Amino acid sequence: MIIDCHGHYTTAPAAHQKFRDAQVARFNDPAAPPARPGAISDDEIRETIEKNQLRLQQQRGSDLTLFSPRASAMGHHFGDEAVSLAWTRANNDLIKRVVDLYPQNFVGVCQLPQSPGVPIANSVAELTRCVSELGFIGCNLNPDPSGGHWTSPPLTDRHWYPFYERMVELDVPAMVHVSASCNANFHATGAHYINADTTAFMQFIEGDLFHDFPSLRFIIPHGGGAVPYHWGRYRGLADMLKRPPLDQHVMNNVYFDTCVYHQPGIDLLVRVIDVKNILFGSEMVGAVRGIDPTTGHYFDDTRRYIDALEIAAADKARIYEGNARRVFPRLDALLRTRGQ
Amino acid sequence: MIIDCHGHYTTAPAAHQKFRDAQVARFNDPAAPPARPGAISDDEIRETIEKNQLRLQQQRGSDLTLFSPRASAMGHHFGDEAVSLAWTRANNDLIKRVVDLYPQNFVGVCQLPQSPGVPIANSVAELTRCVSELGFIGCNLNPDPSGGHWTSPPLTDRHWYPFYERMVELDVPAMVHVSASCNANFHATGAHYINADTTAFMQFIEGDLFHDFPSLRFIIPHGGGAVPYHWGRYRGLADMLKRPPLDQHVMNNVYFDTCVYHQPGIDLLVRVIDVKNILFGSEMVGAVRGIDPTTGHYFDDTRRYIDALEIAAADKARIYEGNARRVFPRLDALLRTRGQ
Repeated sequence: MIIDCHGHYTTAPAAHQKFRDAQVARFNDPAAPPARPGAISDDEIRETIEKNQLRLQQQRGSDLTLFSPRASAMGHHFGDEAVSLAWTRANNDLIKRVVDLYPQNFVGVCQLPQSPGVPIANSVAELTRCVSELGFIGCNLNPDPSGGHWTSPPLTDRHWYPFYERMVELDVPAMVHVSASCNANFHATGAHYINADTTAFMQFIEGDLFHDFPSLRFIIPHGGGAVPYHWGRYRGLADMLKRPPLDQHVMNNVYFDTCVYHQPGIDLLVRVIDVKNILFGSEMVGAVRGIDPTTGHYFDDTRRYIDALEIAAADKARIYEGNARRVFPRLDALLRTRGQ
Repeated sequence: MIIDCHGHYTTAPAAHQKFRDAQVARFNDPAAPPARPGAISDDEIRETIEKNQLRLQQQRGSDLTLFSPRASAMGHHFGDEAVSLAWTRANNDLIKRVVDLYPQNFVGVCQLPQSPGVPIANSVAELTRCVSELGFIGCNLNPDPSGGHWTSPPLTDRHWYPFYERMVELDVPAMVHVSASCNANFHATGAHYINADTTAFMQFIEGDLFHDFPSLRFIIPHGGGAVPYHWGRYRGLADMLKRPPLDQHVMNNVYFDTCVYHQPGIDLLVRVIDVKNILFGSEMVGAVRGIDPTTGHYFDDTRRYIDALEIAAADKARIYEGNARRVFPRLDALLRTRGQ
């Protein structure tokens, strides 16, 4: 079985974006009409999924995608607490409908109603709703709700602890995932995403978060940002900062996905990072949608890169399935109820 | 001949830091005594260089280091225009003294007196002084003088054009190099440096800077940040953004150093990036000073990784010497006057 740990509903029906546009208009001008989620039929959802994510699953031969709202549209920097909460709930409810229509193909991962400067309590409540009521198995946590200004405390700060406590209670991991950038220096998918991945990992080295939460688990997407390429630097910095070796200090709690869009990158990832810390992911339909002229295949068809690895079949099975079931215990439980 | 394109005077005599401390004190309290560069003897410089950078050059077998002030101490975010200029001049003057004492071993690369929100004219003047009067051959350009708040325009913005015009006139390249981070999210050498490298490269993809300045040249240090590891992503993003292929659009003007502190990283770098774009560098004595327990050698002894590559001797010679002489024409001219 091939589980893709990283997929977003980047193709949601137009009515969904219309709701967001109305929300933005209303926030900017209180005289504008109130925004309400628009009517979206099951057929519209089917069309956007079957032509895109489901088609690509089938073409590329993956079985199940851990599916969350479009990351770049989370837009935590915009509006206020109420705007963020309403938009987040609409997004998560839409994911739930996708999962209900295609329960064999998608499992829900939720967005959180984060807002700069707002306590994390709203996110605790929405995580609880999504896991306990909607059957979701994980969440995307944004380390920079400001959208490229980085005004929140590091992920190791106690600011985040109430959220981590709930994650641990519910036994769900978080993918560390920023949203759009409103800083002209940072292209969203080309700089902000990768920088956030790198930044989060270094915060985990500096801090002592997993001493306080031994069972807390994070997936750092996009192959861990710059980290595997600079693995020597990070091992050396841990040493200079008098932290324990990374395999003890961080790598019992942190996992990287395989959203690295060329064979040499995946080869490096598997060469330096223990297989137990690698989860298959494609981020499709996502950041890079074209065909690599050097291979004739889609850049984000990451299964080809894993298949081409000269590693034991058992290790491939861990990357494709076993690790995801271990990091997402609620996924494992769900699959077991189906005899999978 | 082995040219290290990336070395900093991280071991300057204590009087130098005392001057900085006095500057900071004076800025914070105008009643404090005025700050003046302290007296530093040639012997003090000899001691700090011979015990550190020169010793390591000899032990590791490199010949010449392109030497600049300590990057993390540039501190462009601190104080005002006058503070930044005085500190920068003191730093560059100290580098000049090192070069005068060891002309066979070091060539000068200057710091710039950047300040957030200040026009780039001061930097134009200091670059001119350092190149025309002090014989320096390049500079370190900070894309984020705010120190982790990223308040300046992207490197492709016209804000920077007067500086680029002077770089082109003087025929000197710039290393894109941030300084310390005053944002708690970003560890300086573990996140801010690497993020800045990645960010700059993506800015070059988005923009059209090298159309306006066909002979402008940048070195992106630390192996190009996350870029080589995500080379497929960047090729794919260039395609999605309707930019020309990277080899035409960026890679006639952008170079990566070899400050990547483990063999697998260097292997990847040379596998995906054309040898013509790679310059030997170690960043010593720098970010990571310890010994890698898995090899028994210093993490930043990057010559070992290059030596271990299974590539043609002519390609190694380009990485070690030829590319640096091409990217730094004033270095080449200097070496030729010496018959080297």
